[in-house]
Amino acid sequence: MFVLYDLAARDGRRFSPTCWRVKLALAHKGLAFETVPTAFTAISSIHGFSKTVPIVEHDGRWLNESSAIAHDLDDRFPDRPTLFGGAEGRALSAFVESWVEATLHAQLVSFVVKDIHDHLLDEDRDYFRQSREQRFGKSLEAVVADREARLGAFQQSLAPLRLLLARQPFLGGTVPLYADYVVLGAFQWARSVSPFKTLADDDPVRVYLERLMDLHGGLAREAVGYPL
Amino acid sequence: MFVLYDLAARDGRRFSPTCWRVKLALAHKGLAFETVPTAFTAISSIHGFSKTVPIVEHDGRWLNESSAIAHDLDDRFPDRPTLFGGAEGRALSAFVESWVEATLHAQLVSFVVKDIHDHLLDEDRDYFRQSREQRFGKSLEAVVADREARLGAFQQSLAPLRLLLARQPFLGGTVPLYADYVVLGAFQWARSVSPFKTLADDDPVRVYLERLMDLHGGLAREAVGYPL
Repeated sequence: MFVLYDLAARDGRRFSPTCWRVKLALAHKGLAFETVPTAFTAISSIHGFSKTVPIVEHDGRWLNESSAIAHDLDDRFPDRPTLFGGAEGRALSAFVESWVEATLHAQLVSFVVKDIHDHLLDEDRDYFRQSREQRFGKSLEAVVADREARLGAFQQSLAPLRLLLARQPFLGGTVPLYADYVVLGAFQWARSVSPFKTLADDDPVRVYLERLMDLHGGLAREAVGYPL
Repeated sequence: MFVLYDLAARDGRRFSPTCWRVKLALAHKGLAFETVPTAFTAISSIHGFSKTVPIVEHDGRWLNESSAIAHDLDDRFPDRPTLFGGAEGRALSAFVESWVEATLHAQLVSFVVKDIHDHLLDEDRDYFRQSREQRFGKSLEAVVADREARLGAFQQSLAPLRLLLARQPFLGGTVPLYADYVVLGAFQWARSVSPFKTLADDDPVRVYLERLMDLHGGLAREAVGYPL
């Protein structure tokens, strides 16, 4: 059994995009796992080796960092469906990850950072407000204030993904790969804590995300959150 | 011997980004090729099966479309260095291609379309101006007029590539793959006809492109053009 220390907010909400990558990767490999709901302020006390989640324990082995965990799963369970397809697929997946972080995460956090705060466990609120307000150089309220006005630029920035989806159903081609879970993780993060709607109803990116949410018994869809 | 019908402008300039992908892919596989300089207005008369370059002929087989040609090279010469690393790598490379086209090509053409025109062979000029002015809905001169003002947004849009390059030297990881040639093709296109400088001297993307230009005996670097 894999044990994932999974960042948790109130009401069972699981909002970490990188923990979502790992949950979906484990499901993709058909590996059983349980999650331990974890507060931000409790992370550093888990086995004492990582300041960030995801943290995974399996048979006494401890791992952190989502891509390193996913690489390890493909290395140790080569007979199960691949997450990368070898060294070249790992390298190329790193570009998808870079695009997701520089494009999706960077904009989504500026839409939902106040909603994250409002859904946090009590013990995390002060830490979160203080660290994020320092990072942004302004109040959480000021960060999200003009989010409606920035929605058009966000939707435009999805053009590369839309062009890809006109060519094939998944980043992985005809089947999903880890790269698809990196994209879904970003949107699971936002929708777990925020009702702010970022995609038009007829956006092909929404159709794609809905398809991903149905995978693995609806693992992502069944999570506590707001509609996409 | 592979024969590539390669879009040509004056003075031996070869500006097609998709033809650059194929030249670099052939060199990557260690396959000898020659190029036939080809005018825009002559494409449809080459074997009569494609309205666009690249077109490749080898042992009586005719192929078009850059990715299809590169897939074919990996299929037929599996013992030579791979361009994709299998089905997963092909699928993930398609996202790089989508990103390059939606981000790099879309902006670069709006910087250099007038420079392309000015370097074209005489027989292509009227066709090019007419078709591109129809596409943009304005004169070539109007398209490029404010390019200096749009340079900052262009450089910002390279953030995903910059983030990737902080992690690994090539999109292919420690070695270049087809995906890297798709990126280089975009910049070879621009620099073959335009002196407009799009990257700051210390931009890691420039350092990366210089590294790519040195590959395969300086194939890209030796081409007629302006400095990057």
